[in-house]
Amino acid sequence: MSRLWDKGAPLDERVLRYTAGEDHALDNRLVEYDARASIAHAEMLNAQGLLSATDLEAIRKGLTEIAAEHAAGNWRVLLEHEDGQTALENLLTERIGEAGKRVHLARSRNDQVLTAVRLYLRDAVDELKQRTEGAAQALDELAAREGDVALPGYTHMQQAMPSSVKLWAGGFAAELRDDAEGLHQVHRRLQKSPLGSAAGYGSPNLPIDREATAKKLAFASVQQPVTSVQLSRGKAEAQLLFEISLVMQDVARLASDLLLFYTQEFSFVALPDAFTTGSSIMPQKRNPDVFELIRGRSASAQACLLEVMGIVAKLPSGYQRDLQLIKVPLFRGIDLCLDTLGILPSALAGVTFRKDRIRLDPSIHAAAEANELVVKEGISFREAYRRIGDKLRKK
Amino acid sequence: MSRLWDKGAPLDERVLRYTAGEDHALDNRLVEYDARASIAHAEMLNAQGLLSATDLEAIRKGLTEIAAEHAAGNWRVLLEHEDGQTALENLLTERIGEAGKRVHLARSRNDQVLTAVRLYLRDAVDELKQRTEGAAQALDELAAREGDVALPGYTHMQQAMPSSVKLWAGGFAAELRDDAEGLHQVHRRLQKSPLGSAAGYGSPNLPIDREATAKKLAFASVQQPVTSVQLSRGKAEAQLLFEISLVMQDVARLASDLLLFYTQEFSFVALPDAFTTGSSIMPQKRNPDVFELIRGRSASAQACLLEVMGIVAKLPSGYQRDLQLIKVPLFRGIDLCLDTLGILPSALAGVTFRKDRIRLDPSIHAAAEANELVVKEGISFREAYRRIGDKLRKK
Amino acid sequence: MSRLWDKGAPLDERVLRYTAGEDHALDNRLVEYDARASIAHAEMLNAQGLLSATDLEAIRKGLTEIAAEHAAGNWRVLLEHEDGQTALENLLTERIGEAGKRVHLARSRNDQVLTAVRLYLRDAVDELKQRTEGAAQALDELAAREGDVALPGYTHMQQAMPSSVKLWAGGFAAELRDDAEGLHQVHRRLQKSPLGSAAGYGSPNLPIDREATAKKLAFASVQQPVTSVQLSRGKAEAQLLFEISLVMQDVARLASDLLLFYTQEFSFVALPDAFTTGSSIMPQKRNPDVFELIRGRSASAQACLLEVMGIVAKLPSGYQRDLQLIKVPLFRGIDLCLDTLGILPSALAGVTFRKDRIRLDPSIHAAAEANELVVKEGISFREAYRRIGDKLRKK
Amino acid sequence: MSRLWDKGAPLDERVLRYTAGEDHALDNRLVEYDARASIAHAEMLNAQGLLSATDLEAIRKGLTEIAAEHAAGNWRVLLEHEDGQTALENLLTERIGEAGKRVHLARSRNDQVLTAVRLYLRDAVDELKQRTEGAAQALDELAAREGDVALPGYTHMQQAMPSSVKLWAGGFAAELRDDAEGLHQVHRRLQKSPLGSAAGYGSPNLPIDREATAKKLAFASVQQPVTSVQLSRGKAEAQLLFEISLVMQDVARLASDLLLFYTQEFSFVALPDAFTTGSSIMPQKRNPDVFELIRGRSASAQACLLEVMGIVAKLPSGYQRDLQLIKVPLFRGIDLCLDTLGILPSALAGVTFRKDRIRLDPSIHAAAEANELVVKEGISFREAYRRIGDKLRKK
Repeated sequence: MSRLWDKGAPLDERVLRYTAGEDHALDNRLVEYDARASIAHAEMLNAQGLLSATDLEAIRKGLTEIAAEHAAGNWRVLLEHEDGQTALENLLTERIGEAGKRVHLARSRNDQVLTAVRLYLRDAVDELKQRTEGAAQALDELAAREGDVALPGYTHMQQAMPSSVKLWAGGFAAELRDDAEGLHQVHRRLQKSPLGSAAGYGSPNLPIDREATAKKLAFASVQQPVTSVQLSRGKAEAQLLFEISLVMQDVARLASDLLLFYTQEFSFVALPDAFTTGSSIMPQKRNPDVFELIRGRSASAQACLLEVMGIVAKLPSGYQRDLQLIKVPLFRGIDLCLDTLGILPSALAGVTFRKDRIRLDPSIHAAAEANELVVKEGISFREAYRRIGDKLRKK
Repeated sequence: MSRLWDKGAPLDERVLRYTAGEDHALDNRLVEYDARASIAHAEMLNAQGLLSATDLEAIRKGLTEIAAEHAAGNWRVLLEHEDGQTALENLLTERIGEAGKRVHLARSRNDQVLTAVRLYLRDAVDELKQRTEGAAQALDELAAREGDVALPGYTHMQQAMPSSVKLWAGGFAAELRDDAEGLHQVHRRLQKSPLGSAAGYGSPNLPIDREATAKKLAFASVQQPVTSVQLSRGKAEAQLLFEISLVMQDVARLASDLLLFYTQEFSFVALPDAFTTGSSIMPQKRNPDVFELIRGRSASAQACLLEVMGIVAKLPSGYQRDLQLIKVPLFRGIDLCLDTLGILPSALAGVTFRKDRIRLDPSIHAAAEANELVVKEGISFREAYRRIGDKLRKK
Repeated sequence: MSRLWDKGAPLDERVLRYTAGEDHALDNRLVEYDARASIAHAEMLNAQGLLSATDLEAIRKGLTEIAAEHAAGNWRVLLEHEDGQTALENLLTERIGEAGKRVHLARSRNDQVLTAVRLYLRDAVDELKQRTEGAAQALDELAAREGDVALPGYTHMQQAMPSSVKLWAGGFAAELRDDAEGLHQVHRRLQKSPLGSAAGYGSPNLPIDREATAKKLAFASVQQPVTSVQLSRGKAEAQLLFEISLVMQDVARLASDLLLFYTQEFSFVALPDAFTTGSSIMPQKRNPDVFELIRGRSASAQACLLEVMGIVAKLPSGYQRDLQLIKVPLFRGIDLCLDTLGILPSALAGVTFRKDRIRLDPSIHAAAEANELVVKEGISFREAYRRIGDKLRKK
Repeated sequence: MSRLWDKGAPLDERVLRYTAGEDHALDNRLVEYDARASIAHAEMLNAQGLLSATDLEAIRKGLTEIAAEHAAGNWRVLLEHEDGQTALENLLTERIGEAGKRVHLARSRNDQVLTAVRLYLRDAVDELKQRTEGAAQALDELAAREGDVALPGYTHMQQAMPSSVKLWAGGFAAELRDDAEGLHQVHRRLQKSPLGSAAGYGSPNLPIDREATAKKLAFASVQQPVTSVQLSRGKAEAQLLFEISLVMQDVARLASDLLLFYTQEFSFVALPDAFTTGSSIMPQKRNPDVFELIRGRSASAQACLLEVMGIVAKLPSGYQRDLQLIKVPLFRGIDLCLDTLGILPSALAGVTFRKDRIRLDPSIHAAAEANELVVKEGISFREAYRRIGDKLRKK
């Protein structure tokens, strides 16, 4: 438990903790992206005559090394650093001296952070997309293994029409692939370069080349005008969390089905031992915890989305410090979805349908029988429906 | 106030009201789409030999007339009809007899409703997109009229860098255009035809042609497998409400700025009389209600999104009656966004910036001065920053 | 569909519709409370020498008649009235002349609306509380009728320990009674009188007696200082919607259980015909729509809560027009909860447990057997647990 | 970034991480409460003849020592322990042997965790209440220091009526005291003892005395029936987060006011240096980050509430593993509110109002003048309002 409010702590430390929050820990995942963007920025400054070749070389070498050392686990962003940007600049200056301070020309922490976040999100989106397709693939494999097993098709949780494992798994696989495409669409909001917009009003009297840094960092275009940059903050983030929420919704609904199928009353499926856990007081039980937690975490994903939208809501334009809080729900939402999609394929690989226990209610064929009456006797479906209904009620 | 719970009302009426809810009122906007989809379905049934040419003709003529009469305001879906689909089928059967019942072959209310909703949403998305662009256009016009007026650019709500009406309006216009593209992306989740998936498990023993109805209704493809149809319910709807929430967030932030600029302390803008209202006890006041309500309605839009996601959450697969409740927040969200975007251009047309009252703090040029020092003296930005800071503190 | 944005409509009508919104329709439920508060206010003005006895009498008589006519359905608040307060004042002035305008001394629409809302909410809270207890009572009756029927007790949706209908229904009844107490607690935030705070800054130069109106309207105290009144707006409303959300959560979880029990696979319950509906294509089916809609509406209740909190979020102090939007989710949340609780007791009255179909897994007694081993043999529970587990696995 | 999904990690470790989640870290704050509840439970077992005096003594001594060592920071719950309950039991058994296993008789992790959480929440509620009152006190002190400074009173963000620092600060202080009472009300949902309900169905064949443990742990009563215990999970938690959201809403609105007052255009306040931070590119700026982050964190608090309600939503009765996820938003919401209230009094202590810069618009006295006309001339307020309005417009 954070002890920020302890009476003992000196004021400045308490303010630092309140303002820096979890930034230092969160920023670790941005270090590599920040280093890359800073190098691109330095190269542009050099090309524009705003940075000497010697300084550029020192910066490039310094940042490359520092990022490599971070990736190797040799240092972490700490609370004392306040945030990752400051950590990086301090380390660079320690190492290469005055030149380290020259990289911050014509940019601000506002565009710097946003650039690093977008670069990171491009990777995160691709990783999420790939894992979502991986989960769909795991459903395809389940369908390939056990697709022929007949299942009741339900509406209103009532047996309604004949279905099959193939149809059941195929429905979820199709939706996950739709989610993967939805995730891919998020790239649209990540393809404009914020770099060079500085604090949100550009650097009017400096001859910078935003097109150049955009190109180096593989952005499709420069975000214009500069004032739109900070207004756009939280939007790509929210769209990603929205699409994550849909992924989590789909896997949570899959979990709901499996939890139902795993009840003793249904007994439609057996679950792999590794994915069930024991009870502390009921020795006979194997609990489907993994699927319950998948279901539960869908609510956490939605809360992450709501948090980002709530943080941005109603803010006057221009950068506001509130926006920094977006990282917490953003990274949390990404992680919980990656974790869930990371565990799901193994879990699905162990699901087996208990053919012997699955029973279709005989009346499940009523709609099909009505259809046949229509074709055979040329009566309307409504009339056929009435007749089959009467027949069933007499049974 | 609904009096459903009055002890007096007979049970079946109370159940009807609880289950049918507001459906009848909501379904009015679906009637034209439902008629169109039903005709396409009937044409397909005829082509497949499941409906005679005579019946098809009667159905086509009947539905066309009924839809035209609805559009003319001659009838409305009522609570007694339960929902729009039932209303349409009953009216058709009254008019053309037994043939009216034949259109329901190989479909269910589940795919029928969803088809009509998707057709409606395609139009709603386009209308929303066009109005969002209209609001951006109104900002362009404002920038054209008053773009040269200097404004402080703010960060942390503090004067930070020089800006202008052009930059201020341009930032919002760019974001609204981004929102319009975001709205357009929603079409991806509207382009698959649910028609013919029936209750969610198809009509296995009927020779239907889902490709044909998809084509007639201008869907890009058939939604496959049938089980994915009901799983997808609420997803396009949620994406639309998500994008609506972003539009509303942007216009609410625009409203936040204008409400700030309209305070006596800022006095940056004058608002048109038609868009301010008087006070009941303070004769001198003109209140900027329209902008306050724009800001407030952004919260309603978010609630609509959350409601749809909450309704779908954790549901086992297959149609569930809960899904019908989606229409309330869906239509509400669409309407409040259309209403807001409908009023905004006129409101913006009357905004004038009060050049004489806008004052930029002299220190607002500090960053630019530091940049100049860098260029002139070749020192690092950090060093220039330190010097300018010292100079300002001495003043 | 609202056609506000039609190009044809004149600007002032469009602004009126955008600002007045649904107020006129919503305000109908406040008319009686507003009349009552206005009379109390007039009596105080008279006692303080700010209103003549003749005027008071005219106001009292006028408002009483107008409220009675409203209750009788003879008039409704219309869009032209803008809101209920204006409607009431206009009708009064039409009827009694100049005196009708004198009631508005020392108050503003801000405190007037809030007073009427609090008076209304006191009744709504009591009605909700009573209906919540009614639902608990219906569960008691179910327990009295069928309490002895053995049920499996579940954890993780797995049979865990022996339970009974009595325990099952009793758990929900206890929680609903807890919810009723939670609803009752909302009164704390409704017991302070806002009347006389005017626009939020009082009427410093008028000798009014806020204690007197508070007493007349049965408030426990006067809300002080005046500036706290508008800051408190939305808080009692949110607390009520929070408690409504808990009620809806509990009945939704009850519905989840019943929907599970009603599956063919469980077959634990039969539901009354009046509470199930037929399928449009499957003649054999009876769908438990009422319970599905109860489950679904729990999401709507949460959205109402979120909407109110979102509307109030981050607003500077002092009345803001956004606050008027609170009525929509507030009244909607109240109505949907009243509707649900209004239908639930009849639904529960028809539930019967199918004793013949309910099967307890033999291993459900494992924990009890382990307990017995502990008592008999004096071993630790952990050891007994191990032994029983071994025994079960060998079977 | 969690690397759970790394292909390299063995399956069981990945499952452990997915299921145990952050439990071990979170459970550290429950250790002392769990030890206390376990001792109470052991004492009851002894009194009921289910545990020997020797075993009881060993358990009491062992748990007391282990808890003290935890409080001293000598051990922490680790991922390998899975959760705090398991850690405690393992440590106890290591230390005192077989007797350590005997404490788990007649209880389950389900009631054990819930008991510890409720004991913890009682303390957290009191701490939150005290800090909320502390913030109100800081506002009182501000009012005592600078209360006489005249301020405009705003409605619609427009100068409306004369106000003062005393009224401004007093309004917020009153609301915070109301929030403190709201927090106190949460105790109602914390006063029933879940202990002895075991997995949710009691221990029917063991002679336990739930009244005794309830009394020892200062609960007001035993939660009955046993099935209500798991149904109640998340409700006290949600109520606490709801009240936290109101506290955060009030301080966020206070922050909104101060951020407005701190703009150059208002210049109503000066903020203490320790609570403002510098800009990375604008040397002249002092940014009010602390108040921005208070505003932003109000959105996080709401998200915590929504997350808890979303986790519980629609779950069938009986313990479900999803419920364990409640701890994350619960503890997060408590911490962010404690942190905010911990920093606020110091921040308020440094706020000074800039009397020289605050200007009241002359027309701000219009309502008061109208009131005076009413009293002097006996005309209606409406008439006086018209006259004053005319006069103002002529100026």
